Amino acid sequence: MSGPLILVYNQNPETIAGYLRGHDCPGRVVTASHADEAQKWITEAEIVFAWRLPSPIYAAARHLRWIQSMGAGVEDIVANPHVGPDVVMTRIVDQFGVPIAEYVFAELLYHVRNLAEARRLQRARQWQGFSVDSLKGRTIGVAGLGSIGKEIVRKARVFDMRVVGLSRHQPVAGLVDRAFNDRQWIEFVQDLDYLVLALPLSAQTARVVDDTILGYMKPHAIIVNVGRGRVIHQSALIQALYRGDIGGAILDVFEDEPLPLDNPLWGLPNVVVTPHISGPSVDEEVAAFFLRNLKRFLGGEPLEGVVDRERGY
Amino acid sequence: MSGPLILVYNQNPETIAGYLRGHDCPGRVVTASHADEAQKWITEAEIVFAWRLPSPIYAAARHLRWIQSMGAGVEDIVANPHVGPDVVMTRIVDQFGVPIAEYVFAELLYHVRNLAEARRLQRARQWQGFSVDSLKGRTIGVAGLGSIGKEIVRKARVFDMRVVGLSRHQPVAGLVDRAFNDRQWIEFVQDLDYLVLALPLSAQTARVVDDTILGYMKPHAIIVNVGRGRVIHQSALIQALYRGDIGGAILDVFEDEPLPLDNPLWGLPNVVVTPHISGPSVDEEVAAFFLRNLKRFLGGEPLEGVVDRERGY
Repeated sequence: MSGPLILVYNQNPETIAGYLRGHDCPGRVVTASHADEAQKWITEAEIVFAWRLPSPIYAAARHLRWIQSMGAGVEDIVANPHVGPDVVMTRIVDQFGVPIAEYVFAELLYHVRNLAEARRLQRARQWQGFSVDSLKGRTIGVAGLGSIGKEIVRKARVFDMRVVGLSRHQPVAGLVDRAFNDRQWIEFVQDLDYLVLALPLSAQTARVVDDTILGYMKPHAIIVNVGRGRVIHQSALIQALYRGDIGGAILDVFEDEPLPLDNPLWGLPNVVVTPHISGPSVDEEVAAFFLRNLKRFLGGEPLEGVVDRERGY
Repeated sequence: MSGPLILVYNQNPETIAGYLRGHDCPGRVVTASHADEAQKWITEAEIVFAWRLPSPIYAAARHLRWIQSMGAGVEDIVANPHVGPDVVMTRIVDQFGVPIAEYVFAELLYHVRNLAEARRLQRARQWQGFSVDSLKGRTIGVAGLGSIGKEIVRKARVFDMRVVGLSRHQPVAGLVDRAFNDRQWIEFVQDLDYLVLALPLSAQTARVVDDTILGYMKPHAIIVNVGRGRVIHQSALIQALYRGDIGGAILDVFEDEPLPLDNPLWGLPNVVVTPHISGPSVDEEVAAFFLRNLKRFLGGEPLEGVVDRERGY
């Protein structure tokens, strides 16, 4: 095979590599699932297609021109001092909206329709009514109005919710019922029944949801995080949950992942913990995204999902 | 108080009666929660506002002009030989679409996003991926395109599902991707991933989902019943589930309610049982519906939700 050397790196790179080879990938595909394997190839690699390749590995790169992340979050490579300014970075975009919005509404409906109680009654074979509520008329606030946030807004509309949004830039007219910018967090959160975080991690968003913001939320409000764990000040969240300052949390992302065994979030009664599965990176979809970008790369065309290093995503 | 004598009957009639009295109800409101109490009032009652008033009670009615059901299903009063043809029957309409559609999507998302496994992993404090699927691109068939069926269709659209429908009458253009009539059950069910039953119970629909229809369904298909239990041939369904002819069932209504303790549906692995709670009849909403109709009744205007006895709903 001719063409550039492409290093595919994640925990199980053979599925993606197999897809690429089976689809006439114009390049030489090599794989690594451990740092020492990656070390062998990084010197010659022109393209890295990876998820969480350990940062020091990049120090040995000599021919690297492009890094395609297998996910949407790229804070590790943006902050990596071993990646020179001439290396293009891209991330997967527009593939996560549907699965993440399904995650959000699966969990919101689980909560509002009291499915935990429904399952308990069934196990006990008890025919007994129980209180259920509705999403209709409730206010949802979506922080981050990229492709993921927009899909959450779209689905919230059909549940007849009031929808407000927070983003750095003014969203298009009519997208949300009220728009806030990133200097208006307090005004944004104080009327919400549900706060959904779909934000990238950057200097502006790190720990933006802190003690102060949590203190302004309604005591019944539920916080949902499908973006990045470090957007929330996690110990402040745990304290707010203990104190009853907010009503609950649905968390797919955490300050440190995996979430440590002794973290109280696992066991708090009004907390849902899932292991970063809201946006499954289906191998075929990720590989197909890369292949489309590879053809653009070789043809000298602009790539999809180019990361702005200043902005951080 | 002047005006007609209104008998309010259900298990707990005081909530509704209190609402009516607190909203200047033009009539004399009396209540009953047992057959013998109802017996006292039925002779004089001009209006019955009830849920499942035992059929023989109506035999003693002398002045009855109107029966307002507290629910959407009226098969008991339609079939009651003691209710004369000059008594108007009305049912609650247009109030159940939102809660029932929320029930349907809460349960479909619970299933497709594998929330049972998510909850199990959290209880075990295990950080471990698991397979999740998506509603996107799946085919949902909605049988019954009244106000409930239409709301299910509306929500299915935002989940990017293919939507087909079955109804006695041709639905409006564009409502569903493909429309079937009630002589086309086999063609209707054979391509479905999800079959949602939102049908009234009538001579045409009783046990319409039988062994034959179940046999034509896909082995992974899920059947959801939010209409009336007797629309399904329940023992045929149980056999189909045991044999694996279909993938599962989400049931809020049953042949006999409460579902008997020894019924295998309670314990089958791919079956969700809920105690007829998909469309909660919120007392205030039901009472407000009645009050609006009462004003029409006294003003000689046409009522909302009039039952066609021939049709059965």
